Formats: sequence, structure tokens, C-alpha cells
Amino acid sequence: MNILEQIRKELPWLEDKVSYDLTRGKPSSDQLDISQQYLEKINQPYHIDGVDIRNYGLPEGLPSAKALGADIMGTSAEETLALDNSSLSLMQQILSCGYFLGFDKAKLDQNSKFICPVPGYDRHFKLLENFGFEMISIPFADDGPDLQALAQVLEQEANVAGIVCVPRHSNPTGHSYSDANVSEMFNLISQKKDNFMILWDNAYACHDLKPTIKQSSANEIAKNCGVWDNLFHLSSTSKITLAGSGIAFLSMSSSNINQFIDYRNSVTPGPNKMNQGLHVEYFKTISIEEQMNKLKEVILPKFELTEQYLSELQQEGLCEYKSPTGGYFFTFDSTSGKAKEIIDHCDQLGLKLLPLGSCHPNGKDSANRTIRIAPTFPDLQSLERCMQIFSKVVKYLN
Amino acid sequence: MNILEQIRKELPWLEDKVSYDLTRGKPSSDQLDISQQYLEKINQPYHIDGVDIRNYGLPEGLPSAKALGADIMGTSAEETLALDNSSLSLMQQILSCGYFLGFDKAKLDQNSKFICPVPGYDRHFKLLENFGFEMISIPFADDGPDLQALAQVLEQEANVAGIVCVPRHSNPTGHSYSDANVSEMFNLISQKKDNFMILWDNAYACHDLKPTIKQSSANEIAKNCGVWDNLFHLSSTSKITLAGSGIAFLSMSSSNINQFIDYRNSVTPGPNKMNQGLHVEYFKTISIEEQMNKLKEVILPKFELTEQYLSELQQEGLCEYKSPTGGYFFTFDSTSGKAKEIIDHCDQLGLKLLPLGSCHPNGKDSANRTIRIAPTFPDLQSLERCMQIFSKVVKYLN
Repeated sequence: MNILEQIRKELPWLEDKVSYDLTRGKPSSDQLDISQQYLEKINQPYHIDGVDIRNYGLPEGLPSAKALGADIMGTSAEETLALDNSSLSLMQQILSCGYFLGFDKAKLDQNSKFICPVPGYDRHFKLLENFGFEMISIPFADDGPDLQALAQVLEQEANVAGIVCVPRHSNPTGHSYSDANVSEMFNLISQKKDNFMILWDNAYACHDLKPTIKQSSANEIAKNCGVWDNLFHLSSTSKITLAGSGIAFLSMSSSNINQFIDYRNSVTPGPNKMNQGLHVEYFKTISIEEQMNKLKEVILPKFELTEQYLSELQQEGLCEYKSPTGGYFFTFDSTSGKAKEIIDHCDQLGLKLLPLGSCHPNGKDSANRTIRIAPTFPDLQSLERCMQIFSKVVKYLN
Repeated sequence: MNILEQIRKELPWLEDKVSYDLTRGKPSSDQLDISQQYLEKINQPYHIDGVDIRNYGLPEGLPSAKALGADIMGTSAEETLALDNSSLSLMQQILSCGYFLGFDKAKLDQNSKFICPVPGYDRHFKLLENFGFEMISIPFADDGPDLQALAQVLEQEANVAGIVCVPRHSNPTGHSYSDANVSEMFNLISQKKDNFMILWDNAYACHDLKPTIKQSSANEIAKNCGVWDNLFHLSSTSKITLAGSGIAFLSMSSSNINQFIDYRNSVTPGPNKMNQGLHVEYFKTISIEEQMNKLKEVILPKFELTEQYLSELQQEGLCEYKSPTGGYFFTFDSTSGKAKEIIDHCDQLGLKLLPLGSCHPNGKDSANRTIRIAPTFPDLQSLERCMQIFSKVVKYLN
């Protein structure tokens, strides 16, 4: 009997033809129900902050939405823009502005190379790849990107012009960078401060599920290290309120803000301020902290369940993983280098995982090790089944 | 007494220090009140078309929002995407995809040149300029772009790879292209169909104020002329429901759709479907036609008032203008080539107009002729004052 037949025999519910999916970091409907419950209690405002939000104007976003972003990111409202519904789109616009016009301290061209801590976020890598930028992988240390590796790349490679980071509950490894790590990183980067773009995707700024280290504001550290004009600090409410219908924020120096807003005037007549107003009203009804606590009640049991299975596999020597204290993901590293085989077998049993290489630049995971697990979308019972399939496949393949 | 003193004496209300603004094509609050009135009657849906619109997914947009876009643009829903809140942002993404990846039949590079019928839309020109594309102006004929001029450019210039058009109630001239014009244009372009991008910004697709020629679907004409894979047909509800909080639509061939959605996956996790759902509900309450009729009641008197003044100036030989049958703009052409002087004098009297050259590529109106007048935002009384200032300045300067 082959492995698939064996597992099908052991898990007779696989006959149900239900599909199981651990690919994307999507909120579950239980999470979205929480937001809907509060949204239903509020009325859409049409004027706010003395502004007619039904009309064009205010390219930097509503003042009270800027303040909301500043709250989430630990920045000041003056240094924070409240814009459209996707921080990834803002990243595309930042890169475009850097490429075609150049920021004062971040000018990109076809030879620019970006440093990418890996494993990382597939859409970041695809975005950089689509600009034609070469990506140079560096590994992680315990408290953030491996800075020896970073120093070496900065020293040895020509045309290194940027780095992309998820500094808290990193996608997908769960790393939260220590202040010491960030300070040293920014100090290293300061050698290149005449031309360097730090894409700082703070997507999980307030998404703790367990006690997590405190982090100083990246803006303040950047100012202290002399790289404030190099920092492009992003976040959003996508995984706070509703996914795809939130507000994306961007915090940076005032000269970068001026240039970016000027560039944006040729790209959009401005953000959706109706949605910004709705969010401002929303967080008058429930604080960000209360909202995140409610979401934690839904997500934490899924993380605990996932970890039970991974911890068992780790004890058997079949994987390495880092226990995340928040965010949306686990990273499974196959110690025997069988990630592709695991993904393929799971697929044949009806469990979808991202393809091999999704967490690596250009889709290349040459060690055949890394699988991202996104446990938030399925309900607990489905997640248990997903992890049963996954765990059995890993065990049988080893 | 100089001109300014003379006008201040004749218009004593200029002392009021009220500012007058005819720069941007913004809806008035009266228009927005119409939309608000209907929005207040409907409830935000959370599920629609069998989709949980609170979550990520459906990168091509909600089926019923695609149908709404198809209705507005005269296209089919299968060939139409419902996306974010700005068709200009979509244009930036189309150009980026064409530049960095290339569509099958529209591959751009740093040497690509775009044909621009002038006068045209300042944000289009700035967008193209920011990519570094050279722009080649062609004039208008009565029923659309001057096709002799177009033919000449296509024949004589190397690397011509695109054109940008506003085919109905063109911004700012008000031209509505005849079917004959579009067919001949597309036939001319078909010589270059292996590499050509037609940016077709149908922003005023249903914004008639007076009887306007019927237009066949540009998609159908493109198919007949063999340039279907070259057409990127855009529209939005920005000037139908709320400005800045609408839905932008994009209609094109299925191979372009596939490639663009794939590209968009690195740029955004998808459009704001909550807003799409809201719009779908909105147009169950009032039809697009009824909505546009209500808006017309507000806008048409402003157009008639503006035209009174322009018609008088024209009769005195001081300007040329084309009477628009819809859209948002008038184009004033100074017969004596004094556009800059008019703009400057108006500015000193408190009336803001766009700077000279705004309707021309790279801001260059070498004939010093063109001023765009956007009469929708002020109320009727303010608009009358704007036109009094404008008219007196024109007369005294001639």
C-alpha cells in the first residue's frame, strides 16, 4: 500500500471531498463576524474632521485616520499618511516613485538589488521580481535578520539599494525584531544612506497572541541612526477590521511625504475617505486593543492546535519551527529536505499548501525545506483535519 | 488705474475675500447630497453573489459589480473587471505591467512614445511623463482626434507605442468621438498592433447633459479592427456616486485580463469588495439613468451659465470654445494668445485656474491659448461671480 492509500485508510473522512486550505493568511468568518457586529452599530459618516469626505481632496488622508494609523504603528500623525486599502499597493507606488523619479535618498534603477530576509512574504518577492530587481537572500538570527550576513552583503555586493522587512510577527517565520537588532541593522545600512530604501512592512504591529517583546518605534531608531530618509514604514487595518476593505498607512520623513504625495497626484485623485471615516467611527466604539483581544480569542486556539502537531513532529526530529507569538503564520522546515514531496502528497489528499519556494525570492527554495502554514482561515475542526493530513504525510515520508 | 483696480471697482464683492476656484472637476455638495440621500436608505451588505465580501479574494471583482461596470461602459461583464477606487491608479498599473512585464501586444520601454490628443487631461500627461515616455501631441478634429495628424505620427515617428483618449465628453474639450472616427483611428493603429497600447479612459461614459451622439462599444470596434488586444478600456463611478469612493472598471481581452490579474496579485490582495457591494445595492435603489438625470439637474444650469459668458466672449472674437454636451469641463482658447496673463490676473483677483500648460503634455502650451474651466464645484451664485471675474479679465486684457 502506498503512502496515500495508507493515509486515506487511516483518515476515512478524506472521502468527504471537502477541500482543506492552509495557503493564505485570511481571517476566518468568526473573526470577520466580530468586525461586522461593530460595523452594524455605527453609521457611515459623511463629514468628519470638518471635511466633506464624499468628495475628492486631502491626498494625505483624513486627519483622524492618520491619527489611527499613528496609533497602530507607534508613529506620529504628522509623519503618517492614511491612504488606500492595500499596503502592498503603496509599496508598488513607493518602488515606482523610487524607480522613475527617485526619492532624495532612495533612487532605484534596473541594476538595484534588494536584500531579503528569508523565509519571507511571497507577494513582496513577486513585487520586487516584477520590477526586475535582483534579490539577495539572508537568513534570520533569533532576534531578527542575521546581521553578519547583512553586513557581508552590504560590503561585497554592488548596487544594493534596499531591504524588505516584516519587523513584528514576520511573515512567515514569526520573528519579532529586537531593538538591538534594528539599531544595528540601521547602523549598518547608514553606510549606504545616500541611496537605500528600507521597506518596513509593519503588517502585524498589534497582532500579538502571546507575550511578545516590546519594540521601540522604528521611526525613532531610524532617526537616531541617520537613516530616517531611507525608511518607508507601512501598515494597515487589513487584519484588524476587514480584509481587503481596510486602510493602509505609510509613515516616513516629511521630505519623502511631500515627494510621494506629489507623485501620487498623477496616480490617484486620493484615498477613499468614506472608508477612512467609517474606520474612525469604528474605533470610537471599540478600542484597537479590545478589537485585537477579541480576535485573539478566535486565533489563539488555532495557533495552539497547529503547534501541538508541529511540536510533535519537531520532537521526532522531522522538522524545525519557531513558535510564533502572534501574526498569521507558522514556518515548517523539513529537516530531511522533503518540502516538495510533502506539499505534493498533501495536495493529492485534498490539502492545499503554497507551492515550494513561495517563501523565497524567485520561488527558489534550493534546500527543499520551507512550508508556510496559515492556520487562521479554517475553523478549528477543519484545521485539526488539515494538521492530521499534514502530520501523517510528514511522518510517512520520513 | 490698472486692470485689477478697475475690476475691483466694478465688482465690489471681491472685497469679501471669498476664494473662487475653477481648477478641478469636483462634484458640488448638491450632487453628493443626491448620492448620500440614497446611501442612507440602504444597508451595507456583507455577503453578495454568494461571496463573503468582508474577506480577501475575487481579484477580478464581485460579479454584480462587474455587471454594473459593463452596464456603464457598454461592455460585457466577462470582459470587465471591477477593481479599486481610481481608474487613474489602474492606468498606472497597466502601464507598469506593460513596462516591466509587457502585455502580449503592448510592451513598453524607456523609448516608448505616446500620442496625446490635446488639449487633454493633466493627470494623464503627468502619469506618462513620470514613466519617462515622450508624448507627441496631435490636435482634435470635430468628431475626435485629428486622424491625418495621427496617421502622420504613426508613419514618421519611431517607437510610438500608445495613445491616451477620453472618448466621450473629453476632458477638457468635450469632444465625443464619432464611430467613424474611432473605426478609422483603430484601423490606423492596427498597422502597429503587434505593440500598441490604447488607453481608453471612458470616464464620462454616461455623463450627457444635452443630446449627445450615440457611440458603439469601443470593444466591438476594436475587435472589428483587429486591435482588441491593444485596448485598455477604463471607467469608474467617481462622478456618478461619490468622488474618490467609487469603483473603477477595466475592460479588455481575456488574455490581457489574465495577465493583468496575475500582475495585480503582486500589487494588491484585491479590491475593496465591501464598497463594490454597497454600489451594487445602491443601483438597486436607483438606476444609473435616474441617477445621472438627477445630477444633470444640478450640473446643466452651471454649464448654461458658463456658456453664456463664453459665448459672449466668443462673439467678441476673444476666444474659441466648443460647446460641450456633457462631462465636467469647458476649454477656453484665447484667440490673442493671452492665456497666462488671464490666469495670472484671475489669480490676483482671487479666482484660481489651473496653471498654463495643464492641458498639454509636459505643461507646454506654447501658443499660450488654453484654459480649462471646471464649473461643477461652486454653487450657481459663486460660479456666476467666477465667470464675471474671468470675463472681465479677458475683456480688459484684449
